[in-house]
Amino acid sequence: MKFSKFGQKFIQPTGISQLMDDLGDALKSDKPVNMLGGGNPAKIEAVNELFLETYQALGEDNSSGETNSSAIISMANYSNPQGDAEFIDALVGFFNRHYDWKLTADNIALTNGSQNAFFYLFNLFGGAFSDDKLDESSQSVDKSILLPLAPEYIGYSDVHIDGQHFAAVLPHIDEVTHDGEAGFFKYRVDFEALENLPALKEGRIGAICCSRPTNPTGNVLTDEEMAHLAEIAKRYEVPLIIDNAYGMPFPNIIYSDVQLSWDDNTILCFSLSKIGLPGVRTGIIVAAPEVIEAVSAMNAVVNLSPTRFGASIATPLVNNDAIKQLSDNEIKPFYQQQAKTAVALLKNELGDYPLSIHKPEGAIFLWLWFKDLPITTLELYERLKEKGTLIVPSKYFFPGVDVDNYKHAHECIRMSIAADEDTLTKGIAVIGEVIRELYDKAK
Amino acid sequence: MKFSKFGQKFIQPTGISQLMDDLGDALKSDKPVNMLGGGNPAKIEAVNELFLETYQALGEDNSSGETNSSAIISMANYSNPQGDAEFIDALVGFFNRHYDWKLTADNIALTNGSQNAFFYLFNLFGGAFSDDKLDESSQSVDKSILLPLAPEYIGYSDVHIDGQHFAAVLPHIDEVTHDGEAGFFKYRVDFEALENLPALKEGRIGAICCSRPTNPTGNVLTDEEMAHLAEIAKRYEVPLIIDNAYGMPFPNIIYSDVQLSWDDNTILCFSLSKIGLPGVRTGIIVAAPEVIEAVSAMNAVVNLSPTRFGASIATPLVNNDAIKQLSDNEIKPFYQQQAKTAVALLKNELGDYPLSIHKPEGAIFLWLWFKDLPITTLELYERLKEKGTLIVPSKYFFPGVDVDNYKHAHECIRMSIAADEDTLTKGIAVIGEVIRELYDKAK
Repeated sequence: MKFSKFGQKFIQPTGISQLMDDLGDALKSDKPVNMLGGGNPAKIEAVNELFLETYQALGEDNSSGETNSSAIISMANYSNPQGDAEFIDALVGFFNRHYDWKLTADNIALTNGSQNAFFYLFNLFGGAFSDDKLDESSQSVDKSILLPLAPEYIGYSDVHIDGQHFAAVLPHIDEVTHDGEAGFFKYRVDFEALENLPALKEGRIGAICCSRPTNPTGNVLTDEEMAHLAEIAKRYEVPLIIDNAYGMPFPNIIYSDVQLSWDDNTILCFSLSKIGLPGVRTGIIVAAPEVIEAVSAMNAVVNLSPTRFGASIATPLVNNDAIKQLSDNEIKPFYQQQAKTAVALLKNELGDYPLSIHKPEGAIFLWLWFKDLPITTLELYERLKEKGTLIVPSKYFFPGVDVDNYKHAHECIRMSIAADEDTLTKGIAVIGEVIRELYDKAK
Repeated sequence: MKFSKFGQKFIQPTGISQLMDDLGDALKSDKPVNMLGGGNPAKIEAVNELFLETYQALGEDNSSGETNSSAIISMANYSNPQGDAEFIDALVGFFNRHYDWKLTADNIALTNGSQNAFFYLFNLFGGAFSDDKLDESSQSVDKSILLPLAPEYIGYSDVHIDGQHFAAVLPHIDEVTHDGEAGFFKYRVDFEALENLPALKEGRIGAICCSRPTNPTGNVLTDEEMAHLAEIAKRYEVPLIIDNAYGMPFPNIIYSDVQLSWDDNTILCFSLSKIGLPGVRTGIIVAAPEVIEAVSAMNAVVNLSPTRFGASIATPLVNNDAIKQLSDNEIKPFYQQQAKTAVALLKNELGDYPLSIHKPEGAIFLWLWFKDLPITTLELYERLKEKGTLIVPSKYFFPGVDVDNYKHAHECIRMSIAADEDTLTKGIAVIGEVIRELYDKAK
């Protein structure tokens, strides 16, 4: 069959399609796989218990006459395109209770997961724009999404409906300590490069976007960095989009002492995935009403209306703040401990080798840098896969950067820390064995 | 904020956005509304009971040690981009059991509802194509989706990522009887016009698509019409897309004696919405593996992976054929009775006026034609809305047709028959009153 150009774009193998295929194959495989590659959150018993309790409560009819449980009402009715109204009201109350944002229901739309939100937002603020000075039918300006700190999330790469429209700035790499130990680094925004970016000065940037904590690195941009980015965004009259999928107040997988801010030039994206509900595909956008209206209109055309089940499960937990307690008391400490365990295992395996770890400040990954590794990490990925261990090589995490001549982009890997301790131990042992051999042979 | 051209497209008011807004407002309104406008399925107690029972069973842990219910597994894990593997396997078994299609899991992908499927498919087969004779970067051919029988579903109109790419053929209108009574008509495909369509002959059609039963008319294309369309699709080497959201084997809201066929040039789209689960947003595509691969890749980029809850609820019902029994024994008879009731009410109100009803052959709507009505049905929609009764005017159901000079497209309305009898009675009384006055004044 003949596919359109739009369709052709999707049948090219992409970084994310390879990742998703490998993960899918691993889950289907008979052989045991050390799954350090995916983005699936960890299985945390206390979390699942609360979700199951909530699930069961939603299934209870509140009178004897007819089936009128919340579960049935949510299954049996479309929401409007903006998303489940009850959940949106719960979120308005929650955010205004914990932050003084003065939101109304006009500030929130739901999407079928965070990826869906970024598909909308990156096409809303990237791609072809009408030139203000000319009428709509005439020549257009191509605008990009500015990623102020590469590496960034792999899933952004392919979302533009035509080609890619990203501009990214490479990081400053600072050597830092972590819990008093050496062997760590931290990325920082190169504001000089950012401020001098021709695309920014020439009006060819449609929005600035960062994930915080960053997927894949676990970096958390400082409050100063965020304030500077917000100022630049305002100066150039473009929105600042923050991918808060791992951030506060839920799932709150963030260990550095930072604040969360919002104003009407900020587009804050939340997700229910990393509190443990990836299967329900629920994303939350907090933004100015004009953005919410556009997202709702996209929901209507792309999906008719968003899925409701995640909203149903989360509504009571947002109303009574259980989602925050769960994040603070279970989810955050769990991943903080996982990061400690993984760092200790890695130091044990590779303490005498040129491994440097990005300072673990949040999210569910470690980002490992093998300086001067004799092979690219894409080749490393293949070798590890052969030995039943899955990670993700770094080259896919640089949307907007031509990485051909940027060595660092071929020397890192993203490693999930969501696996159980046995898998972490076995997987890191395989990584250790392969890496030691590579460096030893090159001596 | 400045939006891209893609974004601008979405903030224009559209037929579907008006419809969805009115429906949403009606649901939020304090005043009682006779809701005959929406596409929400009816509340059928036996249906909801089975869904609730299934819901509760999914929430039961199968051992005492940990939370491992199907509900938790489905909530707490991403599926792969193709969709929930267990549900796909269940569907393969189901379709092969009831039809001899010899499907494998490579023939099925899930989407976040049927609208999401059509967003993918219409952009995969409509829009800009590379010219086969030239290389990819050079000039492109614009292809349209051919709708062989207008009127067609309102939701198709806006799904193309740039503009609209539809070509539609106006119907033959036959006067017919229904249950032995006059006052009915049936649309038939004008194959002469179709075969002579310049776009088809010149290779500017990317796919042929029809809904069967048709939303909005309740028309069911005959087996002969379907075979002829399939033949044309093969001859021109384009796929035939069938929107089977109301069709067999589920929800089976179809009263004429017809067959369902599939081959690898056919793309069959199913939905869980009209069996009573619109809130779960689950669409099913049955097609050749190359189409399934493309849809899976689109799922990965647009949504990461499809939502799983609908799949979880439906899997046991597909495995044990309860979904078919429910459709045959509860859903189909319910709507058939609703259609009878609505027709009787309409004949009672407007028996002496020039009302003609499209022969009710399926779906959850009646399509009413007010011949030579002194006002357009867009104006009628406004007058009925003022009196608290919502329907949808016909002009939005002609994607691909310039209806300015096509009078019939301004003389019809779509009326849902999913409401309870009280609402149907009151709504039809309002329609009767307004229509009688309009015709009486024009005498």
